[in-house]
Amino acid sequence: MSEEKKHYQRPLNFKTGKVEMNFGAGGKASAQLIADLFAKNFSNEFLDQGDDGARLPQPKGELVMATDSHVVSPIFFAGGDIGGLSIHGTVNDVAVCGATPLYISCGFILEEGFPLSDLKRIVESMAAAAKEAGVKIVTGDTKVVERGKADGIYINTCGVGVLPEGVRLSGANCRPGDVIAISGDIGDHGVAVMSQRVNLGFETGVVSDSASLNRLTEKLVAEIPSLRCMRDPTRGGLGTTLNEIAKQSSVGMVLEEDKIPVKESVEAACEFLGLDPLYVANEGKVIAICAPEEAEKMLQIMRDDPLGKNAQIIGRCIEDENHFVQMETGFGGVRMVDWLTGEQLPRIC
Amino acid sequence: MSEEKKHYQRPLNFKTGKVEMNFGAGGKASAQLIADLFAKNFSNEFLDQGDDGARLPQPKGELVMATDSHVVSPIFFAGGDIGGLSIHGTVNDVAVCGATPLYISCGFILEEGFPLSDLKRIVESMAAAAKEAGVKIVTGDTKVVERGKADGIYINTCGVGVLPEGVRLSGANCRPGDVIAISGDIGDHGVAVMSQRVNLGFETGVVSDSASLNRLTEKLVAEIPSLRCMRDPTRGGLGTTLNEIAKQSSVGMVLEEDKIPVKESVEAACEFLGLDPLYVANEGKVIAICAPEEAEKMLQIMRDDPLGKNAQIIGRCIEDENHFVQMETGFGGVRMVDWLTGEQLPRIC
Repeated sequence: MSEEKKHYQRPLNFKTGKVEMNFGAGGKASAQLIADLFAKNFSNEFLDQGDDGARLPQPKGELVMATDSHVVSPIFFAGGDIGGLSIHGTVNDVAVCGATPLYISCGFILEEGFPLSDLKRIVESMAAAAKEAGVKIVTGDTKVVERGKADGIYINTCGVGVLPEGVRLSGANCRPGDVIAISGDIGDHGVAVMSQRVNLGFETGVVSDSASLNRLTEKLVAEIPSLRCMRDPTRGGLGTTLNEIAKQSSVGMVLEEDKIPVKESVEAACEFLGLDPLYVANEGKVIAICAPEEAEKMLQIMRDDPLGKNAQIIGRCIEDENHFVQMETGFGGVRMVDWLTGEQLPRIC
Repeated sequence: MSEEKKHYQRPLNFKTGKVEMNFGAGGKASAQLIADLFAKNFSNEFLDQGDDGARLPQPKGELVMATDSHVVSPIFFAGGDIGGLSIHGTVNDVAVCGATPLYISCGFILEEGFPLSDLKRIVESMAAAAKEAGVKIVTGDTKVVERGKADGIYINTCGVGVLPEGVRLSGANCRPGDVIAISGDIGDHGVAVMSQRVNLGFETGVVSDSASLNRLTEKLVAEIPSLRCMRDPTRGGLGTTLNEIAKQSSVGMVLEEDKIPVKESVEAACEFLGLDPLYVANEGKVIAICAPEEAEKMLQIMRDDPLGKNAQIIGRCIEDENHFVQMETGFGGVRMVDWLTGEQLPRIC
């Protein structure tokens, strides 16, 4: 009898099985879930060490560390799922700081009764997303809570990356005159999730933009010395993220409405749902800000990447002691783009 | 009007206020929660950078990375709470790998309606635990889910530490003849939580041992060259953790029952609750294994630390192709200490 067979009496049933409380109790059932699902899909030289933490080589530079918990509902949506999203979200948080993401931890909180078939699909999606982004899932944890104490599955990821020497991006770096670009159409993720959630029966055809941006951001970091700051406009959308940067840098911003790329289908769905695309979450877009002399080059680098082909320069930073974000509308007027107040889209990521 | 006042209309009410959905929506309310609670309590030079991820100095050695999600119920228990526990648990996972823990990320999943007074108490407990352990909370995330989709609060932490040069601890390193020590009484945490949860009205007087072990583990790493492995026996308890190590190292183990330190109050409560202290979770104990020549020195180092004053040598590794963990009982017999099968204590950490 093999070592495995001695310790794990019955194979997990990934067709009709459900998550049981003892999967999170730290005994044999926990060990079996790790062996049959996580270790199998996420296998790499660090995770396979099998200790309480992963031992990782000394990094060749400063670190960046970022975390996100993911509670998106529904967990499967057009263009993605909570698994891929949990990798993309954290990879992007590390990447927009200018770093190369290397290592990811994952913490699962599972609700008793959650279908093992769904868990398997989510884990496979995480493994594929990690592979595509070139990151390794090096350590993890699983907890199980009783029925009614969660909503199927929540996933926390934490990412660690390494900064190229001398890179100092920050939301506090922008200066009047700097140029603001976005890597593509806004609002896709939020609209894809909301369309599915409200179950209004209309087919928007919108799919989430959930994707890892680290290849694109690494090119910008390497080739645009005047790059001040990058941010991925997730919760709160483009509008809130630009307000955060304006406040951090003590500048104002002026946007050109007709330069902000939004799909017609997204605009139509937003109108129907009572949303403003400026505040709808994105999960595969990056805002980048640099000196005006390098703006065209920055735009070209974005457009040369498959994830940035619809990139646009959408505005510039100005002197403004109020740190307002304003938008010149198509009709020649000016609209204030305020922070998102209150709740627009709960559980969007 | 100050910058803060412009952005945050009303102060958070930490006496009677509740968590609202928009605290997790990424807009003004999220920013206010971060400013008024998290930034204020966790403040340090890295968190205060205020970007999507924290930029950290290049570490002087290999890294260790570990994560844990915390779902303990009740969230406040004798001797601790979910906040302190979420720091201790991850600090210990990094520390038992032989590393010095440096940085912690935290991801909150909050249930709509959760009292802000409880959240404040938990955050203050985290801040105190981090300070005591000498680690910094450098980045975080907050999500809010609807009533009935969580159980008040879940906290994920991820920790990063740095390994002293040449340190190579692993559960796979043990050899026949090696000596096994535990840093103190077992079962305190699990019994403290269970006593409170089952609400049986009996006062066990047992308090959780929840604590950060990194000062103790660092001394062992520095002074015991033959140290093979350390582990904190949390979920699954001493019994399961020793089985994991025996399997990883392909050895057997023999324990001496009368050397395993258990408080009388814990034994009594376990009998009452139908539990075996060998499988009850600890949150401030470490198992350490070294060569027999250094066993007494290892024991003395443990006993010289306030968290190890009741340390004991409890057994040794032997050759055994079955990798069994056996225990010589007080009556001269031998009992098998198997893996924990099924569930003993759900949501204990």
